[in-house]
Amino acid sequence: MRALEEKILKEGKVLGDDVLKVGAFLNQRLDVRFLMEMADEVVRLFDGVAIDKVLTVEASGIAFAVCVAHKLNVPAVYAKKGGAANVSGDTYSAEIYSFTHKASNTVVVTKEYLERGERVLIVDDFLANGAALNGLIDIVGQADAYVAGCAIAIEKGFQRGGDKLRAAGYKVESLAIIDEMSSSDIKFRG
Amino acid sequence: MRALEEKILKEGKVLGDDVLKVGAFLNQRLDVRFLMEMADEVVRLFDGVAIDKVLTVEASGIAFAVCVAHKLNVPAVYAKKGGAANVSGDTYSAEIYSFTHKASNTVVVTKEYLERGERVLIVDDFLANGAALNGLIDIVGQADAYVAGCAIAIEKGFQRGGDKLRAAGYKVESLAIIDEMSSSDIKFRG
Repeated sequence: MRALEEKILKEGKVLGDDVLKVGAFLNQRLDVRFLMEMADEVVRLFDGVAIDKVLTVEASGIAFAVCVAHKLNVPAVYAKKGGAANVSGDTYSAEIYSFTHKASNTVVVTKEYLERGERVLIVDDFLANGAALNGLIDIVGQADAYVAGCAIAIEKGFQRGGDKLRAAGYKVESLAIIDEMSSSDIKFRG
Repeated sequence: MRALEEKILKEGKVLGDDVLKVGAFLNQRLDVRFLMEMADEVVRLFDGVAIDKVLTVEASGIAFAVCVAHKLNVPAVYAKKGGAANVSGDTYSAEIYSFTHKASNTVVVTKEYLERGERVLIVDDFLANGAALNGLIDIVGQADAYVAGCAIAIEKGFQRGGDKLRAAGYKVESLAIIDEMSSSDIKFRG
């Protein structure tokens, strides 16, 4: 999505080798009008794919997931971090290792919020190594639901998580894929 | 908002004396279609009030704040928990004590995401003692911005935070105000 690539170049900041800060429009500050345009693009990319629900993980995935769910006219669910302590009832859970924060998180979803046989679109702001997506895919499997695909705002292609998921047969659509980045330049996949 | 009161009665669960779980539509599972109707009601309640930006706090406030920002056609910003460690640049900060989780959180907003003179609508899913709102109001003040008002999904009126803020002169609009609740009954303010 050309408009997203331009926004990343204009408003994003590369820190170190592999951190891209897009707090100006996608995290912390939310350019909701633009997120809705991104969601329109997701709807276009998944045209013809049956989707019953959107699934993401707190906190940075929620805003984009809400916009996608709004455009698809389906509910959204977000996995909570920090284990089951602040969630009541039976839960599905998965371990997600964050390379950005160098810590592992148990994420949980209350069982009643994912139904058997539902077709679930997994949505997230970033895809890097794929740890978060793999955790969410695992949770969808625990619920005997189906992964309809994964819709990502920004994929760090050089970290290969997206390509591994595509090789495994998942429909992974990222609105921008970065193949190389440094503080002076960002190269997008053609 | 009658439809919200009915939804709370139908889908909410009262735990103990003062915890209301609405994970089925407002937290964790997000009934985005209904959240957008709630946002329409916020727009109606703040008709004639100039608003430049929506401010909330992660994670449970984000979904409703995104819907309100969408309907107002303004950006949203969310304060991050856990101090400044995962946020780059200069920040405004406030301490927020959570009576639900019995823990204090430092919440931060990157300075460049709140501008001097902006009229900020503070949005949250719950209002109880007012700790979160007071922290966000403090942050708006640090930015030399203005509090245009507070829009809340569910106010636990019996915890008085909302009435104190109204007495202090803030326009606080809650879509449902609970004056009494127990596992067998919920009484809304008339």
